[in-house]
Amino acid sequence: MDIYKKALKLHEENKGKLEIKIKVPCENKDDLSLAYTPGVAAPCLEIYNDENNSYKYTNRGNTVAIISDGSAVLGLGNIGGGASLPVMEGKAMLMKKFAGIDAFPLVLNTQDSEEIIKICKSIECGIGGINLEDISAPRCVEIERRLINEMNIPVFHDDQHGTAIVVLAALINSLKLIEKSASECKVIVSGTGAAGSSIIRMMYKYGFRKIYAFDKDGILTKKDIEIYDDLKKELLEYVNLDDKNFSFELSFENADIFVGVSAKGIVSKEMIKKMNEKSIVFAMANPEPEISYDDAKDAGAYIVGTGRSDRPNQVNNLLAFPGIFKGALEAKATKIDDDAKMAASVAIASLIDYSQLNEENVIVSAFDDRVCNTVCEAVKKACIKSKNIRGIYGK
Amino acid sequence: MDIYKKALKLHEENKGKLEIKIKVPCENKDDLSLAYTPGVAAPCLEIYNDENNSYKYTNRGNTVAIISDGSAVLGLGNIGGGASLPVMEGKAMLMKKFAGIDAFPLVLNTQDSEEIIKICKSIECGIGGINLEDISAPRCVEIERRLINEMNIPVFHDDQHGTAIVVLAALINSLKLIEKSASECKVIVSGTGAAGSSIIRMMYKYGFRKIYAFDKDGILTKKDIEIYDDLKKELLEYVNLDDKNFSFELSFENADIFVGVSAKGIVSKEMIKKMNEKSIVFAMANPEPEISYDDAKDAGAYIVGTGRSDRPNQVNNLLAFPGIFKGALEAKATKIDDDAKMAASVAIASLIDYSQLNEENVIVSAFDDRVCNTVCEAVKKACIKSKNIRGIYGK
Repeated sequence: MDIYKKALKLHEENKGKLEIKIKVPCENKDDLSLAYTPGVAAPCLEIYNDENNSYKYTNRGNTVAIISDGSAVLGLGNIGGGASLPVMEGKAMLMKKFAGIDAFPLVLNTQDSEEIIKICKSIECGIGGINLEDISAPRCVEIERRLINEMNIPVFHDDQHGTAIVVLAALINSLKLIEKSASECKVIVSGTGAAGSSIIRMMYKYGFRKIYAFDKDGILTKKDIEIYDDLKKELLEYVNLDDKNFSFELSFENADIFVGVSAKGIVSKEMIKKMNEKSIVFAMANPEPEISYDDAKDAGAYIVGTGRSDRPNQVNNLLAFPGIFKGALEAKATKIDDDAKMAASVAIASLIDYSQLNEENVIVSAFDDRVCNTVCEAVKKACIKSKNIRGIYGK
Repeated sequence: MDIYKKALKLHEENKGKLEIKIKVPCENKDDLSLAYTPGVAAPCLEIYNDENNSYKYTNRGNTVAIISDGSAVLGLGNIGGGASLPVMEGKAMLMKKFAGIDAFPLVLNTQDSEEIIKICKSIECGIGGINLEDISAPRCVEIERRLINEMNIPVFHDDQHGTAIVVLAALINSLKLIEKSASECKVIVSGTGAAGSSIIRMMYKYGFRKIYAFDKDGILTKKDIEIYDDLKKELLEYVNLDDKNFSFELSFENADIFVGVSAKGIVSKEMIKKMNEKSIVFAMANPEPEISYDDAKDAGAYIVGTGRSDRPNQVNNLLAFPGIFKGALEAKATKIDDDAKMAASVAIASLIDYSQLNEENVIVSAFDDRVCNTVCEAVKKACIKSKNIRGIYGK
């Protein structure tokens, strides 16, 4: 039986992947008089007097809504909110398994950005955070930014930042191995959508200055600024600073790093061969990378990573989002800002000791049980430092 | 320690009452390849091809959203969505405990009816039903009706119909004891809000024809139709059919039944004394009834019921909503219509054998473990009979 048949069987036999569990006594009238009427009036009034008390008396502080309109589901495209539900149940499952967070899916019929924003804002008072998922670019960027600005709970779009945080962690470790600084490396990024744009911003923030970005129409360049959407216009602040105009193929000449979040098979062995010695290739198109791990190694790449679990250096966003949400929730954060995301990258990178670092081991396994707590602590600290938190030290 | 302090302690120590539980294996890469990527694509595509498959491959068919704007929370009034969260967590707890349903609270910042309707409709594709809770009248009636008409999943506002279904069950049994038919009984209903209006409609549907309804301004009468809102105008189809115009006090003369869902202490012993022999009094104002159980008995009432658990004949909506939702979900119902609600009343009434029926036992205990399944089966049958269901026999 193939994996898809097995998956269908699993989903049908269990009717999905989540259920609700009661965590207080609920056996008799006395129990109900505390958990429900009349006793429940007491926590209601405490929250009425101070909204922050919902973190004290309800599960709000450990609750994340996983929200999707199903407009850009991994490998499936725009299948709509309803059909994306199995993915969102899966995401909630991972939140619980890896971070102990109680997440529930909220899949939407609408793909209207303003409506999605309104819905998210309307449910803020009952949840601790929002994980946006599988929303198409560039809408996802606008929706997330609006929500980050207009809401008082952390909002995080994993498709944008999850991969970015993890690949930056892998690059931080890779740089140690090749003994180069970020600023001197020539970087080619293929893909400027949700993940690509966040990767570019984070790499720039980390210190990379020679980034060249490509989409299906070629290199991002100021010459074409008129035809770009707002997201691409903004990326010009971070890429192609010396205004080059080479083809994708030629861009590999003297490149140190290739990062792909684009399409299967678009990178050839010949391109890899054009790169500098000790080249770094992260080909993360899903489910099939821009160039396979084996081909990239064969062509001489020094460090290669993909999204695949059957090869070394798996870039898996499971390394990031559970700990990020856990940290944000524990800090009672009002937002996850760029510093918090950077802190997550550095924390993930730190989990490989220099002594264990080698070209087949630049990124820790998602099943390493130190990951979530390490990321959590780093993000928590960053949120507190930036005062993006509730309570007396925050807002 | 009083009950409110105990309740606060319970809520603080447990941080609320619910959590998420994973119901599939999730231990290693193989597990994740079925429950998450890449296997999860298979159920997604099945749902994309036929929306009804979400009932087969996800938890949708056992999921109910408990939605409130906190505009009319029992005993607390308009405290807003956020402060109502402990009640909604409690309701979800009861759904799980009594019917095995996975319900989650969704409390809203907004009290705009159109926005609430939009939000409910937007999340339909991921849930099996909606329980509206603690929304103020008459908005709650309009919101529920719109949703019942415009959605393809069951929507049920417990504050309207829960009490109505249970009190009608109690009246069905009470009539057996006093050996009168519904149509010959003079009925006084105090309160024409969410619960009162549903009680009136259900009593009429059951056969009561001499119903007189009172609100704080006096008897409902066609003379005042100009100043009534739509809800009250509609009630004139069911009440005061012979166009009487008596005061609340005088209305008790020759009355057989009093049903109160209004305010504490507004019924005196003198009023009860004016009623016919073998009078029936259901005084359900909460937390303190229109007249206490003891005073009503003392004044000569034959059958008395209240909302209180420390007296006989407790009218508890816990008798209704768990089984109603369970039946609707098992039928894959698209709505819970009036026939389904009536079926629930009759089913609840049926749980007391004629041999056990007496004036202190006209309604079964909410902790009787036959209740949920009996209501469930009756509602399921009613939904199937009316073809308000998905799949080949439904729509």
